[in-house]
Amino acid sequence: MTNWKQIDTYVRQWLKEARLRIFDSFQKTLDIQTKSDRNDLVTNIDKETEEFFTKNIAANFPDHHIVGEEGFGDTIDKTEGILWIIDPIDGTVNFVHQQRNFAISIGIYENGKGRLGYIYDVVHDELYFVESGKGAYFNDTPIAKMADTKVSDAIIGINSSWLIANRHIPISNLHALVRDSRAARSIGAASLEFAYVATGRLDAYISMRLSPWDFAAGRLLVEELGGVVTTVKGELLQTLKSSTVFVSNKGLHEEILKQYLLK
Amino acid sequence: MTNWKQIDTYVRQWLKEARLRIFDSFQKTLDIQTKSDRNDLVTNIDKETEEFFTKNIAANFPDHHIVGEEGFGDTIDKTEGILWIIDPIDGTVNFVHQQRNFAISIGIYENGKGRLGYIYDVVHDELYFVESGKGAYFNDTPIAKMADTKVSDAIIGINSSWLIANRHIPISNLHALVRDSRAARSIGAASLEFAYVATGRLDAYISMRLSPWDFAAGRLLVEELGGVVTTVKGELLQTLKSSTVFVSNKGLHEEILKQYLLK
Repeated sequence: MTNWKQIDTYVRQWLKEARLRIFDSFQKTLDIQTKSDRNDLVTNIDKETEEFFTKNIAANFPDHHIVGEEGFGDTIDKTEGILWIIDPIDGTVNFVHQQRNFAISIGIYENGKGRLGYIYDVVHDELYFVESGKGAYFNDTPIAKMADTKVSDAIIGINSSWLIANRHIPISNLHALVRDSRAARSIGAASLEFAYVATGRLDAYISMRLSPWDFAAGRLLVEELGGVVTTVKGELLQTLKSSTVFVSNKGLHEEILKQYLLK
Repeated sequence: MTNWKQIDTYVRQWLKEARLRIFDSFQKTLDIQTKSDRNDLVTNIDKETEEFFTKNIAANFPDHHIVGEEGFGDTIDKTEGILWIIDPIDGTVNFVHQQRNFAISIGIYENGKGRLGYIYDVVHDELYFVESGKGAYFNDTPIAKMADTKVSDAIIGINSSWLIANRHIPISNLHALVRDSRAARSIGAASLEFAYVATGRLDAYISMRLSPWDFAAGRLLVEELGGVVTTVKGELLQTLKSSTVFVSNKGLHEEILKQYLLK
């Protein structure tokens, strides 16, 4: 019998520890940025953070499986048993350049079914948490169910680069969507963009390329609140497969899919 | 003899007071959003905040002039004397939808010359401050001079909408810029985007339409740190005139102007 309460207690403790480690790295980061390529360095911090989680998980839950961006986890293609899907630093470019607007993302699945999701905005100490079927929280505050919105009233989260070229949706359709909406924004960290949609700060989020660790937690959060997460063609996401992603509240998801993405 | 120290003391006190007023409004905002158009409401909060500043300025500095977004200030076309240029809530759409990612922006000029600038990220209680010629600060920490970067290593702050259509720069040139850079982001509050450039979190920021209150403070901040603020054609900004804006560190400003904007 899986003790989910115990898992949750550990995860929260590890997130706080990871926060201190990342904060410690900030000073080093700044020093080293002036000497060598700043992308090299941050890879170390991504790796160190993932290794910190995988070691702790293996020590406490030896029969659990782990998939992580940096490859410290297992190579698996099935979702049997308990599976942790981890992005130690989602938004690496922001981490390096901004030292904010990045998050730790952890989704925990059991036999392919979502159980727990964590998106932790490290700098602002803001945790978006979902226990699938039992509610979602922003720190200790329950998050309200997502309300339907319309394109004309919506803020769309989408990176400019997809408006220039992509293999999936004609750019004229995306241009029309941005033109018809109230505004477009781009944070540059998928998990935070899921969290923004979940809390109504964005009405939709579209990406043409996300990996399982980018959406594992955010998907559970949004679905718990009544939102819809699919590919940009409206297909179901597969837990272990990279794909396009389109996230929104229910009413807007239908409108955007019909009027812009499948048009 | 103008007592700048006294002015600074007042501004900081008013910013804190304005913060409390805005926080008070959040609950009301949420209530009213469900009943009527949320754009109407927020206009009231924009107006109330500007009125709060203009009343305080008039009471303490009756000979100063004020230009504000909401029109509570003076109608002027000259920069003689001491002039306050105020955006009570820069990033109104973010304020309404996100209740974060907006700022109070105040630039104070004397006979057309910048003296003091304040960009206050209300939610995160982060103040970007410049006393022209004497330094710039993030809260109490001095901000380092801006370092030169290259397009290939740069994060560009630009709203998607300018990549779809604008009257000033061929969109193919902007597409090339976004394609050649490391990443593009959009916060949706000009003063914060200036502050991000000033602190190196963005390497450049481009907008095709800003008003004097959008750039009055940010311009002083960036220039103090060695950055360059012009129109997208490389022309000087006029203090009281709306225009396109292109902000960057010195090296990148030259590269982008030559290779993309004036090409």
